[in-house]
Amino acid sequence: MGESSDDVRALRWEPGCLQVLDQRDLPARETWLKLGSAAAVATAIREMAVRGAPAIGIAAAYGVVLSTLAQANLPESERLSVIHAEIETLASSRPTAVNLSWALRRMRRCVDRNMGEPTAVLAEADAILAEDLTQNRQMADLGAALIEPGSAVLTHCNTGSLATGGHGTALGVIRTAWRGRRVSRVFATETRPWLQGARLTVWELARDAIPVTLITDSAAAVTLRDAAIRWVIVGADRIAANGDVANKIGTYALAVLARQHGARLMVVAPSGTVDMALAYGADIPIENREPAEVWKAASSMPPPAGVTVRNPAFDVTPAALVDALVTERGVIEKPDADSMARVFASRQ
Amino acid sequence: MGESSDDVRALRWEPGCLQVLDQRDLPARETWLKLGSAAAVATAIREMAVRGAPAIGIAAAYGVVLSTLAQANLPESERLSVIHAEIETLASSRPTAVNLSWALRRMRRCVDRNMGEPTAVLAEADAILAEDLTQNRQMADLGAALIEPGSAVLTHCNTGSLATGGHGTALGVIRTAWRGRRVSRVFATETRPWLQGARLTVWELARDAIPVTLITDSAAAVTLRDAAIRWVIVGADRIAANGDVANKIGTYALAVLARQHGARLMVVAPSGTVDMALAYGADIPIENREPAEVWKAASSMPPPAGVTVRNPAFDVTPAALVDALVTERGVIEKPDADSMARVFASRQ
Repeated sequence: MGESSDDVRALRWEPGCLQVLDQRDLPARETWLKLGSAAAVATAIREMAVRGAPAIGIAAAYGVVLSTLAQANLPESERLSVIHAEIETLASSRPTAVNLSWALRRMRRCVDRNMGEPTAVLAEADAILAEDLTQNRQMADLGAALIEPGSAVLTHCNTGSLATGGHGTALGVIRTAWRGRRVSRVFATETRPWLQGARLTVWELARDAIPVTLITDSAAAVTLRDAAIRWVIVGADRIAANGDVANKIGTYALAVLARQHGARLMVVAPSGTVDMALAYGADIPIENREPAEVWKAASSMPPPAGVTVRNPAFDVTPAALVDALVTERGVIEKPDADSMARVFASRQ
Repeated sequence: MGESSDDVRALRWEPGCLQVLDQRDLPARETWLKLGSAAAVATAIREMAVRGAPAIGIAAAYGVVLSTLAQANLPESERLSVIHAEIETLASSRPTAVNLSWALRRMRRCVDRNMGEPTAVLAEADAILAEDLTQNRQMADLGAALIEPGSAVLTHCNTGSLATGGHGTALGVIRTAWRGRRVSRVFATETRPWLQGARLTVWELARDAIPVTLITDSAAAVTLRDAAIRWVIVGADRIAANGDVANKIGTYALAVLARQHGARLMVVAPSGTVDMALAYGADIPIENREPAEVWKAASSMPPPAGVTVRNPAFDVTPAALVDALVTERGVIEKPDADSMARVFASRQ
């Protein structure tokens, strides 16, 4: 099969150092950043060198490992409080994806159990990474089984190996479904302002020789009308207890348009993305990013007086528009508070 | 009031030369192209140095003037056939906007009546320009009257002075409504891939000190949900006899999303945009432009094998989603074949 994007990795651990593939440079250059401290990991997450809800959770877990290494020579009493403070820094690097705080809670429990001993903490980060990959393969099988053979599908942003520990969430479903001849063609939205679809999803699909058609975000509506798309398949950054889904800006529009055109919406995310502490999607904090991320495409000068830029990084899709929620625990069709509680309430 | 974008002009005639403000360079630079032949005008239209349905009709009209000047010394019998051929070149420069063929039909009648005599033909082009400005002011008053005081509105692409003979269609309504305190804030979509919203609409509104918030195309859905937008106001490139509207790619999505969120859709276009010869919007030819216009934002390398790019420049919004169609002949609420025929059938 030649090169496969299944082999692509967003990050890799080396003794004393987290290496991160700088996704801001893709597809032009494959630059690996060497991050030697928790603060450097937090910066890489905030500045989106590494992005994608599962991948930033994994990166943050290794950031905790770097913190334990840096603090290894401190007296035990000080050590834990410094590590806790660095965990807070990592947690605040991006607000919307709950995988970040989910992974950091788990890492903090491990830190406390082992008094910050780095080897045990590294094993926990390795476990989070390995479990993510396993869960992605499980979700890929579950999601692919929902897709009728020969279907055209549409995806948004990047949810592949680059966004996860490997294989991907929504893109993992698509990749597995392609191998099983269930997917015939992928339409990928470019996903302004960061162009994760145009830069990353197209790159991953091309490596797997999966036919992909790139469209602007604005062309999704006519594509849904004209191209007989059966499924819109996306990831998630946080899912509330009622099944509302926060995901990359533009997902909500695609959900409305999919319903309008008889396509179904599949959301693919590991259970770490589910936040049963939030009753509704409206409670999910939505990150507003720098105006410059949008504006710089128009001009290298600052915006004129009176011009503001609204740059929400995510939006919330109501559960009523979700046809299938795929986690490693199974498929929930048309999720609501009851079905979410049955699957997630007792086990978080 | 200081500088006003009402004073901005997309083009100006000088003896023997059509000057066109190169909109590809805005807002960074105000470059004026000097076009000395019909072929140069056709190229400027095709390559979008001048764009906007009414503006390309006007530019093409002056292209015919340039043709008459170039052919003035030919024998009468040859002269008309060369001018006719150049009119065909102008007509084929872009396929979707019907204003182009509308203006060229009118110019050809004038050419034939006057045996290609340049002075008479120039007077006809001047008349088309002057009438467009007059019609825009009429439509602006009609459209503004529909807007409740203090409304937030959303617009797509650029429909201002730059897209017309002056004042604008949808943006003319917004400008007039702002002066009358009916519009409190404008949300402008950036409008990929050409970014006419981010580059041109923001520039025009800032010159008029009208508060504008720029959003990505993908953020329109949450903006419609959260920002209490009363009207989505757009232009048109061609309107079929049943009221279906071809306009900039992304308009159809906005129409669906506006209806979903209780905002109304106003389409503002001169009667030259109406094509009663086409029964349905599905009959309107939709221009598919170069993949590079989309792809170049992702990479300076060509797309990998297996990657295609779909770049439709326009989409069709069904009449059922149009709440008000504003032309200089009046307002048609919820246009359909009957109401369109009453206003347009007998007079084209």
